[in-house]
Amino acid sequence: MLRIPSISADPAYAKDVRAAASWVGKRLENAGIEHVQTLETGGHPVVYGDWLHAEGQPTVLIYGHFDVQPAEPLELWDSDPFDPVIKDGKVFARAATDMKGNLLLPIVACEALLNTDGTLPVNIKFLFEGEEEIGSRSFSGFLEKHKELLACDLVISADSGVGTEENPTVGTGVRGVFSMQINVKTADMDMHSGFGGGIAPNAIHELVRILDSMRDEDGRILVDGFYDQVHTLSDDEKAQVAQFDAFPEGIRESVGFKEFFGEPEFTPMERGVARPTLEVNGIWGGYQGAGGKTVIPCEAHAKLTARLVPDQDPKRIQELMEAHIKAHTFRSVDVTIEDEHGTPPYRVPGDYPALKVLENVMEEMTGHPVKRQWAGGSVPVTSLFKDMLGAETLSLGGSQDDERPHAPNEFYRLSSFTHIQKAYCLFLQELSKS
Amino acid sequence: MLRIPSISADPAYAKDVRAAASWVGKRLENAGIEHVQTLETGGHPVVYGDWLHAEGQPTVLIYGHFDVQPAEPLELWDSDPFDPVIKDGKVFARAATDMKGNLLLPIVACEALLNTDGTLPVNIKFLFEGEEEIGSRSFSGFLEKHKELLACDLVISADSGVGTEENPTVGTGVRGVFSMQINVKTADMDMHSGFGGGIAPNAIHELVRILDSMRDEDGRILVDGFYDQVHTLSDDEKAQVAQFDAFPEGIRESVGFKEFFGEPEFTPMERGVARPTLEVNGIWGGYQGAGGKTVIPCEAHAKLTARLVPDQDPKRIQELMEAHIKAHTFRSVDVTIEDEHGTPPYRVPGDYPALKVLENVMEEMTGHPVKRQWAGGSVPVTSLFKDMLGAETLSLGGSQDDERPHAPNEFYRLSSFTHIQKAYCLFLQELSKS
Repeated sequence: MLRIPSISADPAYAKDVRAAASWVGKRLENAGIEHVQTLETGGHPVVYGDWLHAEGQPTVLIYGHFDVQPAEPLELWDSDPFDPVIKDGKVFARAATDMKGNLLLPIVACEALLNTDGTLPVNIKFLFEGEEEIGSRSFSGFLEKHKELLACDLVISADSGVGTEENPTVGTGVRGVFSMQINVKTADMDMHSGFGGGIAPNAIHELVRILDSMRDEDGRILVDGFYDQVHTLSDDEKAQVAQFDAFPEGIRESVGFKEFFGEPEFTPMERGVARPTLEVNGIWGGYQGAGGKTVIPCEAHAKLTARLVPDQDPKRIQELMEAHIKAHTFRSVDVTIEDEHGTPPYRVPGDYPALKVLENVMEEMTGHPVKRQWAGGSVPVTSLFKDMLGAETLSLGGSQDDERPHAPNEFYRLSSFTHIQKAYCLFLQELSKS
Repeated sequence: MLRIPSISADPAYAKDVRAAASWVGKRLENAGIEHVQTLETGGHPVVYGDWLHAEGQPTVLIYGHFDVQPAEPLELWDSDPFDPVIKDGKVFARAATDMKGNLLLPIVACEALLNTDGTLPVNIKFLFEGEEEIGSRSFSGFLEKHKELLACDLVISADSGVGTEENPTVGTGVRGVFSMQINVKTADMDMHSGFGGGIAPNAIHELVRILDSMRDEDGRILVDGFYDQVHTLSDDEKAQVAQFDAFPEGIRESVGFKEFFGEPEFTPMERGVARPTLEVNGIWGGYQGAGGKTVIPCEAHAKLTARLVPDQDPKRIQELMEAHIKAHTFRSVDVTIEDEHGTPPYRVPGDYPALKVLENVMEEMTGHPVKRQWAGGSVPVTSLFKDMLGAETLSLGGSQDDERPHAPNEFYRLSSFTHIQKAYCLFLQELSKS
């Protein structure tokens, strides 16, 4: 499965995304799951399967994705990202932790229960998509169309982690996300900088000015109204976040940046999970080869994403971003925006009964108190499940914070297979008794 | 010759630069030029040849280059940049006008004189280099080492134009140039923007802030002291520049930008030849592929060039740029500068006798008054010839303003071969009589 380069962002890999879907379907069938089918979405396909023989019991929809991030920059990988290497109890490959490792956990858990008990304690629906890494863009339409097939009492996202055995956590929230690409075009062709310098606009400078206008030195977002809908943290919420105050330092050391960056009036952990962000993910324009080329480039491009927190609305953010870009564009320059999509932030209600069940299971398994944790990342579908299926989403997966999702040398601990498989079995059993 | 991709900026094409040198050497020999040799510089080679039998006559060194700019962006070319196409009396190819067409003019002129008269009116030395498009970086050391071989009374640069037959011009100045690459590194690896957003610095944002701090909205350069050495134009100089006030509009139309850009207190033509500029020529960092990738990039890069005017000194500009970048860099971020090189601006003295000879030839040939013209581009070697050989440099070439040097669909008018070949013959003859 790790050998399949199921990169959803690049159309050149569409057949690999489909190959990954096919792999997942076969694995579900082998596990004893029924009605396995590949469903079309207009984009990359979805894989569905179910086991619905636990009469009177709740129905749990288990969610995951089989698409992966691009592997670039390839030169920073110690081994081929699509040729997994096992070393020191870890498997190294693109998508090892996000989320081809996690994807297998609920499947093998159900397989084990079916092989042992001949039955499952609750009804199960599996739903694996192929567009999570590109914002689950066809998923909303897909859910709308298949509402009845997917009806459930509770969703579990396997695209997640539950801390370590010493420090168990349950995820109770994710940030939303808003993405766009900005294209600047100043002329029909590049110009010699000798002839054009002093006369012609430069697409890179125009883009740079737009981008630089969006954040101040501390990373505060200068887009008018951007913070208007941001929920102010209560003291309880600050205390919950503060439980993870050591977390950013671990990230800092493993990634190797020297100082924390961001709004100084918030702690790094608060900034990482409870404050919105705006980041340029990529930029390009003009001559990028060896040596120099004295041109005034006529085109420049940047990809951006914002992370959103309650109660920000991606549609509102889109309007604000567009207005900001318009206000910071010269009349004489063509600025176009493309590829906009967004998903709202999500929080599990604090008093949600199944949340307590999961917390009890993790506490019993590990012998440690479980901390509720908000994540800085985004799982676009959580808010869709709430809106379309009326179901809350809990998280149960094996990812740990140092496993380099989206980065070179991504890995997954093999020990997560036993630990989290067991958690799945216990949780489903306890859920049937609750 | 146009089929040889002699791109000096990219080491992958080093053997092609050498192939172009070899072509030029053979062409000189075929023309009857003596002592033809390829000389090493430490970088790309130089081709030398001479004809020194005009006793008592001045020695003219004819300068040109056989290296070319990269051809990117390839998708904007209507035909292969290295497979010349002739259409409507024009040859389309990379380096057609800059300067493989021009390079041939003095060679065929001398060949014609030798075939007709059996002799040349003055002594001639040919000097063609292979690093003009990368700032002639080995040329200073080369001239120092070969001072005696290259001793001359006058230099003619064939890397130029003399207007049109209706509007003849002579070049009497070029801008200088200063180049650098800025590299920003914020961490050892890219980060997931969910985990790192709000915690980690972003290399693209750091670079964008440095670049944006260098110019204001009107293109005024905000680097402290940048304008300190800029010569203030006299009324006579303003009038000389104003003769070409229609020139920028022609550029604007052919390149297709909507409005002129630059300091509003100067005319576009003044800005184009008598004011310094600062341009980002290329930028790159993070994810640039299809779709999106939610990373916080740890590296970003930009290539910059400044065009310099009298009396700016590239060494001083280098110091000012470095100080500015340092002042606009966060402590926590690694900013490195590489590939710095520069060359001063150059002006031919207004009362230089050979300039008058050239003006007379062009006036007689065309029947129109000749305008003295400063160019916005740079010919790095002109100031070197002045410093090292004590010789002024005149310009005589066939390039016209609309021929797209450094840009896609570059071309050269075939009519320049007859027109400027004749100008070379007449100029060398008149020079022997003056």
